[in-house]
Amino acid sequence: MPILDSVTMEPRRTYSVEELEEAAREMRAWVMIALQAAGSGHTGGTMSIADVTAALYLRHIRHDPANPKWEGRDRVFWSAGHKAPIIYAALGMAGYFDDMPVAYHDEPLEQFADVPAMQKTVLLRKLGSPFDGHPNSLKLPGIEVCSGSLGQGLGVACGSALNARIYGHDYRVYCIMGDGEQQEGSIWESVMFASHHALDNLVGIIDDNRLQIDGPTAEVCNVQSLEERYRAFGWEVLNIDGHDMEDILAGLERADSVRGRPTLILAHTIKGKHVDFAENVVGYHGVPPKDGRYGDESLERALRSIPATDLFPPERVDEILAFAEEYGRIGEQRADAEVPSFGRNWWWNESDDMQVEMDATRNGFGEGIAEVGADPDVVAHGADITGSIRMSRFYEPDGENEDPERKKRFVSCGIAEANMTEVAAGFAIEGKTPFIGSYGVFATGRNWDQLRTTVGYSGLPVKIADAHGGVSVGPDGATHQALEEIFLITAIPGFMMFVPCDAVETAKATKAAAATDAPTAVRFAREATPVVTTEDTPFEVGIANVIRYRGSAPNFVDAFETVLSTEYTAEDEDLALIACGPMVPESMRAAVILKEEYDLETRVVNLHTVKPIDREAIAAAARDTGVVVTAEEHQVGGIGGRVAAVICEAGLETGVRFGMIGVQDRFGESGEPWQLVKVFGLTGEHIARKALDLLGQ
Amino acid sequence: MPILDSVTMEPRRTYSVEELEEAAREMRAWVMIALQAAGSGHTGGTMSIADVTAALYLRHIRHDPANPKWEGRDRVFWSAGHKAPIIYAALGMAGYFDDMPVAYHDEPLEQFADVPAMQKTVLLRKLGSPFDGHPNSLKLPGIEVCSGSLGQGLGVACGSALNARIYGHDYRVYCIMGDGEQQEGSIWESVMFASHHALDNLVGIIDDNRLQIDGPTAEVCNVQSLEERYRAFGWEVLNIDGHDMEDILAGLERADSVRGRPTLILAHTIKGKHVDFAENVVGYHGVPPKDGRYGDESLERALRSIPATDLFPPERVDEILAFAEEYGRIGEQRADAEVPSFGRNWWWNESDDMQVEMDATRNGFGEGIAEVGADPDVVAHGADITGSIRMSRFYEPDGENEDPERKKRFVSCGIAEANMTEVAAGFAIEGKTPFIGSYGVFATGRNWDQLRTTVGYSGLPVKIADAHGGVSVGPDGATHQALEEIFLITAIPGFMMFVPCDAVETAKATKAAAATDAPTAVRFAREATPVVTTEDTPFEVGIANVIRYRGSAPNFVDAFETVLSTEYTAEDEDLALIACGPMVPESMRAAVILKEEYDLETRVVNLHTVKPIDREAIAAAARDTGVVVTAEEHQVGGIGGRVAAVICEAGLETGVRFGMIGVQDRFGESGEPWQLVKVFGLTGEHIARKALDLLGQ
Repeated sequence: MPILDSVTMEPRRTYSVEELEEAAREMRAWVMIALQAAGSGHTGGTMSIADVTAALYLRHIRHDPANPKWEGRDRVFWSAGHKAPIIYAALGMAGYFDDMPVAYHDEPLEQFADVPAMQKTVLLRKLGSPFDGHPNSLKLPGIEVCSGSLGQGLGVACGSALNARIYGHDYRVYCIMGDGEQQEGSIWESVMFASHHALDNLVGIIDDNRLQIDGPTAEVCNVQSLEERYRAFGWEVLNIDGHDMEDILAGLERADSVRGRPTLILAHTIKGKHVDFAENVVGYHGVPPKDGRYGDESLERALRSIPATDLFPPERVDEILAFAEEYGRIGEQRADAEVPSFGRNWWWNESDDMQVEMDATRNGFGEGIAEVGADPDVVAHGADITGSIRMSRFYEPDGENEDPERKKRFVSCGIAEANMTEVAAGFAIEGKTPFIGSYGVFATGRNWDQLRTTVGYSGLPVKIADAHGGVSVGPDGATHQALEEIFLITAIPGFMMFVPCDAVETAKATKAAAATDAPTAVRFAREATPVVTTEDTPFEVGIANVIRYRGSAPNFVDAFETVLSTEYTAEDEDLALIACGPMVPESMRAAVILKEEYDLETRVVNLHTVKPIDREAIAAAARDTGVVVTAEEHQVGGIGGRVAAVICEAGLETGVRFGMIGVQDRFGESGEPWQLVKVFGLTGEHIARKALDLLGQ
Repeated sequence: MPILDSVTMEPRRTYSVEELEEAAREMRAWVMIALQAAGSGHTGGTMSIADVTAALYLRHIRHDPANPKWEGRDRVFWSAGHKAPIIYAALGMAGYFDDMPVAYHDEPLEQFADVPAMQKTVLLRKLGSPFDGHPNSLKLPGIEVCSGSLGQGLGVACGSALNARIYGHDYRVYCIMGDGEQQEGSIWESVMFASHHALDNLVGIIDDNRLQIDGPTAEVCNVQSLEERYRAFGWEVLNIDGHDMEDILAGLERADSVRGRPTLILAHTIKGKHVDFAENVVGYHGVPPKDGRYGDESLERALRSIPATDLFPPERVDEILAFAEEYGRIGEQRADAEVPSFGRNWWWNESDDMQVEMDATRNGFGEGIAEVGADPDVVAHGADITGSIRMSRFYEPDGENEDPERKKRFVSCGIAEANMTEVAAGFAIEGKTPFIGSYGVFATGRNWDQLRTTVGYSGLPVKIADAHGGVSVGPDGATHQALEEIFLITAIPGFMMFVPCDAVETAKATKAAAATDAPTAVRFAREATPVVTTEDTPFEVGIANVIRYRGSAPNFVDAFETVLSTEYTAEDEDLALIACGPMVPESMRAAVILKEEYDLETRVVNLHTVKPIDREAIAAAARDTGVVVTAEEHQVGGIGGRVAAVICEAGLETGVRFGMIGVQDRFGESGEPWQLVKVFGLTGEHIARKALDLLGQ
């Protein structure tokens, strides 16, 4: 079926095989330019699925870009949401963005009124753009559902397909998956469901490129033979060459004729196809050209390799990139405008004194796991993002060289967080200290019942590296920005939870996690944030630190005094800020602003241990100051509600003025890390402003 | 390998085939007596796996009951934890309980010092006993891990098996699963992991009895051919007759000789085997003999059928049951002793006036879903406990007769909560209003990332029947008592959540859930609780009700006046109780006690909508009374922390005296529902006592 006018049912455009091949070539180029403009994103999987995508959207499925919600349309669900750029390119080619204005969020930008449809797609991952790192059905036409958390799309497709059966529609349903994604058990629930319900209007397509982030799929956790496995689960299976347009089209046709069971199309593909330096290279899963605009592994070489320099000569590429950059500056300005203003600019490292080093808390986890890994009873588990969360430091303790003995104690689990949790529980039963880890959404939310029942209820010392906490994860967007783990983990009896304030403290928390018998989570973030503690800063499990600003210093960290809350004597401060994670440095900066501009003394309480919570430190802060602001890079109330309960239970005679800084019950979005921190109201300036409001100033 | 002395390595006891058959016969009898004594529990699956269990524990595996944690032991993991009674019988036969005193929790009971080991196992599901409804590794020797949430055991077994490989142990690992359980995707993650890591010291055993709660597995969601599926996933597969002792032993031997891959033993069994009235009967999955001690489907007939009346003549059975009953009375007394005492007994329906009708909130959900199911755009999903949570009323609107048109809109998903959630999302995308449901642990915790990313982030109106909330679930124990859903659901942006106070209000909440465009959870409970509202009681989404005690009446419900919080005028009350769910009736009873015995006026706030929360009603309650107690049958802080945050943010001039009633960061346990409500401190008396403490009375 071609692209249709859903009213007249006339084709809007028909593509020959050659035209499809040409379209795929152009789509690849647009994607590579978009990745370059974004500075992040997925080269490998977008290139491998490009030809299938062109065949689907430009020729095979029945749809009308002018009527995206047309009931009669065929549905395409992208379970592998990280391939978003190629979807955007395909939807753009099909005509979905022709009438969509370039906008910052809902505000159309007049200066970009003449930008051609395809060019809009290079706003990938930019703040305010609808082209999120992972596809968002609320922002873009042609996207059926939000995705980005693997293993979820096939079930949605099943629901849509069964709906057609029950309610008598003749649309067909397609679901695009990765091969690594087949490690997710939820996929197999859906595979089973689809054959049980004989959904012959459903076609699964696997982009079988044989590589995932941690390495070849066969080495990470083998999923093959997918053909045999799907057949055993009752599916028809067709094999196609995913880069041969005739074969792709023939496969899609054949799938449509299967009756009585769902069909899987195994598209044999090459990751990074047509970008020569990225072809079959594991490292090009989730990164744009390494060298930028020019060089050995650059956009320019990618365009030559596709080849697409005829369509995109250098001057055109420069123009397109300039457009993306100009749009990006708008986001930068809008984000800056969200920050409350004070007498001067107090932003990090923007004055000569109060300099601070930046390092990512995930690096602190790396330091910690490298150290505790020396214990032969420590075992580490990987869920395919081992390097990203720095779990790899377990077996590369020096950051470079693999330690073979340690590597034996590293358990590769693949993208299967539930099983990883259970396997770790098995090691814990045998007296080992197992670490598991992934992005927080997956490492606490995709395995929650496993954490509760197998780990928590049995009281097993499984340790969670709860990575990528907060909106500062940045361009990947909401699906990868964990904002709920404090609720999820503290809900489980017996769990301990740390949310350390910087990289140095994260290393300490990791070691403390290894040392306790309790199941424990350590939450940390992706982006570099201020280092505000030293090796000598006290760190006692369950005891908050009190941090006091003592006056400006060349180094930010030297401007503060930090003591255990149990050793602190009240100093008649004007207010208290109770924070965890990278909101501690922001609170410290708020303390500076409040002192220097308003002569207010602030008690900053670093609540690095979120559970068990330091009730005394919180009650004392409320009692001594009468004004409390909590700050967390998390859905508001994670620590805020717990702190409020402690304050209320303290039974103070006079009321406390109280406010909470956090994400206000909304999902994250794509953007640069610090832009998002600003837009979501999570800066020191926001904290200071909230405190001043409470103080009536 | 026989049962060994782990010091001398001499066999403690060897069993011939005939002795094993004899042992299995006795074990079956003990289980049936235990189920009868408990009044609940699983007949079907314990009988089907009895012979395999006897073979494993009494002859095949290497273990030493006198040294349960012996490092050299073979491990048996029970993924199908609901088969607990047969594990208890096997461990008892093997000698694990010989030296274990009969105790109430940790307190040995001298009067039972002479009770023989096997007899201890009939304390199944009793408050204070270690024989929980699902196995608890912290309470009993010989249990490797807590289980009861399906699909988790195989991964734990994988971890244990891999530990042996890495650390050079020669123990072997067994994992017992059900066939219905194979619907859980986490199983397939583990199956894949086991073959990837070539765990040839691992043996999976499936009790392939072909029935699950909702019906034959092939009809609920077909998992067959398991032989082909496991083979395709790289396992060796052996078939055995699970009721032929020679065949079982031979199969176990053969499995031990497989090298290079894990082995699955498919034990072909008959559910309910040897209890004639239960054999192959779907309804006997999770219930004891229907007729009790004597009758057509009775314990007596079960014992005749096994046959085991030679071992258990009626007088012996009576003695054993009397022992269980006596033990049960101790629990009853201990539970009663936990309830704060007042001038008189204020318990439900224990005086002539203030009579109240009891009905389970799940029945209210049933009424609600029966009504909203009339809308042809409403779709309901089942996850194998459809009747238990009353989802079956969707297609049996009158409670008896199946409506074929509605049945077409009922989607059987099997035990696969993640996929169920995704399928429902698919229907939501197509404009339908899908309900999903299961016990709350599984319906909010096993599918959390699916709820977050597919449902919440996409803004899809999926409705969750969050059943079995609270410890009042009773004898099934901690694994089935959901206590964390308020944290899990309110954490997700855009979700609405109701925790209605009684059956009548649950029906209203269900209809409200169907009527809103928001993803919504309705939390309700299993046990009958007081009906304290009527059809005429106001119910407005997001607006709390204020309930005031107006003096004794023949019917409890008539003794109160209920208005919307927006229409309430303060009456200078002495305190406020803010509650949700069945803690609202308890709070109302507390109000009676406080008025009648202390002349205190109480404002009860029914917070039926937990999200969005009624900030005004909470702030007003705190401001007007200065004394607030929150009450929830949930981990404390679920509503408590949210209420505290609202109070703190209200910025009152004077402090509020504040307390929280809830489960104090611990897991539930087995016991009778009302016993647990008492033991966990969740009665009206506890609420009244907490209020009096805050008031200094």
